Amino acid sequence: MNTEATVKPFRLAVKAVIFDDQQRCLLLRRSAINHHFVGCWEWPGGKVDEGEDFATALVREVREETSLEVEITGLAGATEFEMPAVNVVVLSFEAGLVRGEVKVSVEHDAFAWVPLSELSLRPLADQTRDFMLDYAKRKAAGQ
Amino acid sequence: MNTEATVKPFRLAVKAVIFDDQQRCLLLRRSAINHHFVGCWEWPGGKVDEGEDFATALVREVREETSLEVEITGLAGATEFEMPAVNVVVLSFEAGLVRGEVKVSVEHDAFAWVPLSELSLRPLADQTRDFMLDYAKRKAAGQ
Repeated sequence: MNTEATVKPFRLAVKAVIFDDQQRCLLLRRSAINHHFVGCWEWPGGKVDEGEDFATALVREVREETSLEVEITGLAGATEFEMPAVNVVVLSFEAGLVRGEVKVSVEHDAFAWVPLSELSLRPLADQTRDFMLDYAKRKAAGQ
Repeated sequence: MNTEATVKPFRLAVKAVIFDDQQRCLLLRRSAINHHFVGCWEWPGGKVDEGEDFATALVREVREETSLEVEITGLAGATEFEMPAVNVVVLSFEAGLVRGEVKVSVEHDAFAWVPLSELSLRPLADQTRDFMLDYAKRKAAGQ
């Protein structure tokens, strides 16, 4: 048997739930430069590069997409979705702001600090929507 | 602010939930060579090496600990625990047997194929017990 013949390879992506001092999290709106989910909101993050540590990738992606410096404070959870050639596992982390002011990159055209209880009021990117709403529910329940 | 001063670094580990054709998962019992949780049962797995892909690490760790060749079939979930110097994030995957017969390494002294509904009947390693039981509950609920 050949493992590659039966299952798509798995790739790792990371997302950051960055809280401000009012317990609101940072959302970014996907710009028209994207092929999918234009206008949908998401947490900052992206793919882990080959040979890159996931924690390094998270800090790098947040810096690239928001110009913020953050530090990981804990695990938020994991979800997965399928793409044409690969399965993507998304590992999400709670992160604290170290310094900086939000400045979005070309991948996004707006940002907002949003209480978890209000995530469901916005269009969220399909691939992580269920996970985001489940996370908000778990946090509200004190888990 | 210095990020290293406030939060321990995060390291990644992987675990495999390997199912046989009767939907039982493979458990290994920790041998006396270990410093912690001797006699406790766990899923195969271990630390992701520096620069190593998590999927490669999973297949390698399973091979080292069980002599089985497996392929990842899906995400089981994530949990975290704290060690003296680091925080460890454990990413668990469902995996299918490609080939091989179980042969444990020195780290373990027994193995068993166990239905998820019977995980709670055995002493499980502390660090992943809650996650394992929660996963079993989610699977029983069809999630």
